[in-house]
Amino acid sequence: MIQGFDPRTGEPVGEPVAETTDAEVDAAVAAAAAAAPAWAASGRRAEALEAVADALDTRAGELAAIADTETALGGERLTGEVARTTGQLRLFAAVLRDRRYADVAVTPAQGVVPDLRRIDRPVGPVAVFAASNFPFAFSVAGGDTASALAAGCPVVVKAHEGHPVTSDVTAQIVAGALASAGAPPGTFGLIHGVQAGLRLLRHPAIAAAGFTGSTGGGLALARIAAERPVPIPFYGELGSVNPSVVLPGAAFSRPAAIATGYTGSLTLGTGQFCTNPGLLFVPEDVGLLSAIAEAVGASAGGPMLTGRIFAGFTEAVAEAAEHPGITELAAGQPGPGPWGATPRVFQLRLKEFAADMGVLSRERFGPAGLVITYPSIEDLLPVLGVLAGNLVGTVHVDTGSAADVDLARQVVAVLEHVAGRVVCNGWPTGVAVVAAQHHGGPWPATTVPAYTSVGTAAIRRWLVPVAYQDFPPELLPAGLRSAG
Amino acid sequence: MIQGFDPRTGEPVGEPVAETTDAEVDAAVAAAAAAAPAWAASGRRAEALEAVADALDTRAGELAAIADTETALGGERLTGEVARTTGQLRLFAAVLRDRRYADVAVTPAQGVVPDLRRIDRPVGPVAVFAASNFPFAFSVAGGDTASALAAGCPVVVKAHEGHPVTSDVTAQIVAGALASAGAPPGTFGLIHGVQAGLRLLRHPAIAAAGFTGSTGGGLALARIAAERPVPIPFYGELGSVNPSVVLPGAAFSRPAAIATGYTGSLTLGTGQFCTNPGLLFVPEDVGLLSAIAEAVGASAGGPMLTGRIFAGFTEAVAEAAEHPGITELAAGQPGPGPWGATPRVFQLRLKEFAADMGVLSRERFGPAGLVITYPSIEDLLPVLGVLAGNLVGTVHVDTGSAADVDLARQVVAVLEHVAGRVVCNGWPTGVAVVAAQHHGGPWPATTVPAYTSVGTAAIRRWLVPVAYQDFPPELLPAGLRSAG
Repeated sequence: MIQGFDPRTGEPVGEPVAETTDAEVDAAVAAAAAAAPAWAASGRRAEALEAVADALDTRAGELAAIADTETALGGERLTGEVARTTGQLRLFAAVLRDRRYADVAVTPAQGVVPDLRRIDRPVGPVAVFAASNFPFAFSVAGGDTASALAAGCPVVVKAHEGHPVTSDVTAQIVAGALASAGAPPGTFGLIHGVQAGLRLLRHPAIAAAGFTGSTGGGLALARIAAERPVPIPFYGELGSVNPSVVLPGAAFSRPAAIATGYTGSLTLGTGQFCTNPGLLFVPEDVGLLSAIAEAVGASAGGPMLTGRIFAGFTEAVAEAAEHPGITELAAGQPGPGPWGATPRVFQLRLKEFAADMGVLSRERFGPAGLVITYPSIEDLLPVLGVLAGNLVGTVHVDTGSAADVDLARQVVAVLEHVAGRVVCNGWPTGVAVVAAQHHGGPWPATTVPAYTSVGTAAIRRWLVPVAYQDFPPELLPAGLRSAG
Repeated sequence: MIQGFDPRTGEPVGEPVAETTDAEVDAAVAAAAAAAPAWAASGRRAEALEAVADALDTRAGELAAIADTETALGGERLTGEVARTTGQLRLFAAVLRDRRYADVAVTPAQGVVPDLRRIDRPVGPVAVFAASNFPFAFSVAGGDTASALAAGCPVVVKAHEGHPVTSDVTAQIVAGALASAGAPPGTFGLIHGVQAGLRLLRHPAIAAAGFTGSTGGGLALARIAAERPVPIPFYGELGSVNPSVVLPGAAFSRPAAIATGYTGSLTLGTGQFCTNPGLLFVPEDVGLLSAIAEAVGASAGGPMLTGRIFAGFTEAVAEAAEHPGITELAAGQPGPGPWGATPRVFQLRLKEFAADMGVLSRERFGPAGLVITYPSIEDLLPVLGVLAGNLVGTVHVDTGSAADVDLARQVVAVLEHVAGRVVCNGWPTGVAVVAAQHHGGPWPATTVPAYTSVGTAAIRRWLVPVAYQDFPPELLPAGLRSAG
């Protein structure tokens, strides 16, 4: 059985949920495979996604309340997250209506060269592994599910153990809305349990998988996907330390704003974001350090999502704290409950960081940051350049200073190779769900760095092209008949 | 040392070429890595690709003559292949001038949502593994090299052992033309030898790889790419049996044309194409079989590319010939020389084929085909549906017959899931280098089915997105400054 816990007390909450049996997993995938042709051919997927969004919105208060008992993320955040989730579903409905997502290309016959018309088709049934830290937006009805359904792929979601009841209630709403909107049975399914998830990923009828979670878990699943008799694409969005660089001009001109912004980003959601600013690079000998110490000292932690996450955070922070060369810059107020995290910020020199990057650049999932002081940009750039892949890199620059802008150009030229998104004078947390978003990044931030898991381009993960050569119009797929 | 052989005699031809040492491989990759920023930033890549094309065209006759001694593919085919290769280089120059390849997306700021602008960047130095059967178009200056250079990625090519001198001469022309056109040193390199190729693929500075070749070799390399400390995308285009389906109406109305077309496609280039029609499905009890027997009987083989390929073909044909339930339908004239292949076509019933698909649907690289007779479309469709992935599927239909068109629709609905390109009333060989082409297909036809290795979309393999958030114009990359 899978039991949810209240992070505020560490006590069980809600009824335990049964792990999905092998036979039930197989049945869910068989139903998805059976639904695939009709769902792929359906002309009413946009309406179905909107029906799901409407149904979730109608029950947003109830959903947020349930999720709060299992995650302690708070009503305001969770209500907002339901809205983000339904906004995401409606965005993909708009993508479908726009039609351009299917990447149609037409090369008419010319001389001996045949007529060729290409269009994307849905890849087939998709497995989605839900995340702990977004019980809605990266969970049962989250971005992976929305984009895969939009692409025309049935979805089987493996629920996260941290919020089983939230997952079940969400799944009932999704399945009900899809059925009412005329989606074929099997278009959507939910399973529970680690073993069930492994069976799902190995099932021959699953054509691709999406995952948001830890680096360790994601890499293990990626390996399983690659070692299947027929390997499938595994779109994993894993850990990231999201380096932020403060340039001298910015550090001198607005230390308080940077310190406040950093602390807010570091402690947001008790630091439980893959975009958390784990590494902050600041010039040596600046007042910014004391401003950061002050801001972090005034911050407060919160209860972490699960006991396991809290234990991992505690261990990771202890490892950093004991590292030679590191000193503690500041700590905030501990969060309440048995899994309450304390914001912690450590300070060290670039030279020490560079000497043990393997350990020091590890993700510490939670509100803990390293502030690394650099003597000069010339020293900093080669260190930034050998960081492992990240979702986000950030630069803080005084745009009124030509010298700072010149340094920023050099920093950006490096950051754009170690991160999938580069932010100027902002913070990495907060991922806008828009067309130009790229929520991806070099390995190991993601397992397939060419793709995003947020924004309209996320639909591309679930599509493969087919070219039709010298076809009479009556045999072409609908999307190609009128093209060209 | 790597020695080329004349397939017409089996005798050594040309000077042996030294295997590239570990130190030389490292040096080639280091040079590529050093060239990467300047090549990525170069505004003159289109001109450089055209300079390469011009230089190859100027020496087309000489190149074809050298390649003919190492491949016996014949002067006409090889001269045409040089033209295809230079056409490909010029096509990617046009892609660069068009600029849309970089997939720019802009979402202006709105309220609290930040300004986001996304553009593709080159992934970094690329390893290219050349094929045996296209000594130009899928070799040193072939599609992988052209598309990667166009994307802004330096390239290190691992030459195929079958044509070492052709590879060296081509590489000298490519390197010379790139240097004259102002490309940074290291933009292009060539290495020789299997061990050198493995070292190349494992080199930390290599960011992606392209491969065209056998299923066995490709899957072994794909595994190496996936098991690196930092895995990289491995775009392998492997074997394929390219099922062709003849519908009853087509079989009855034009048996001779189908028999001739099939035989031509099967024996073209001595059958040494990944698009060779290895499986032909025809209705039972039709005159088409005798027409095929006649056409194949009148065909002639040729010398195969290498002794190893000839041995593999001989073994694969023997395995098929000895299979219970199979009879030989026809054989053509043997090709000349020690590695001369004989066109062979075998016949069996769908039921027998379905009973041992694992063996019978294996690729037999060369001019050998299975003709599988099916009793009805209802029997055929489920067998087609469980074929492993292919580059091409073909349907032959009498478009004047409503019944045949209806059957075609059912066959296409299956073929588009087991092949990346579906051809109507044509043959799978011949891959047009155009925008709408898709030369890819479900695993194991390719290792990454969402991508093509032929046509303008091939450039996408070497690009990854980066999003820029809230950037002042002066810090944006050039391609984003004026966008939006």
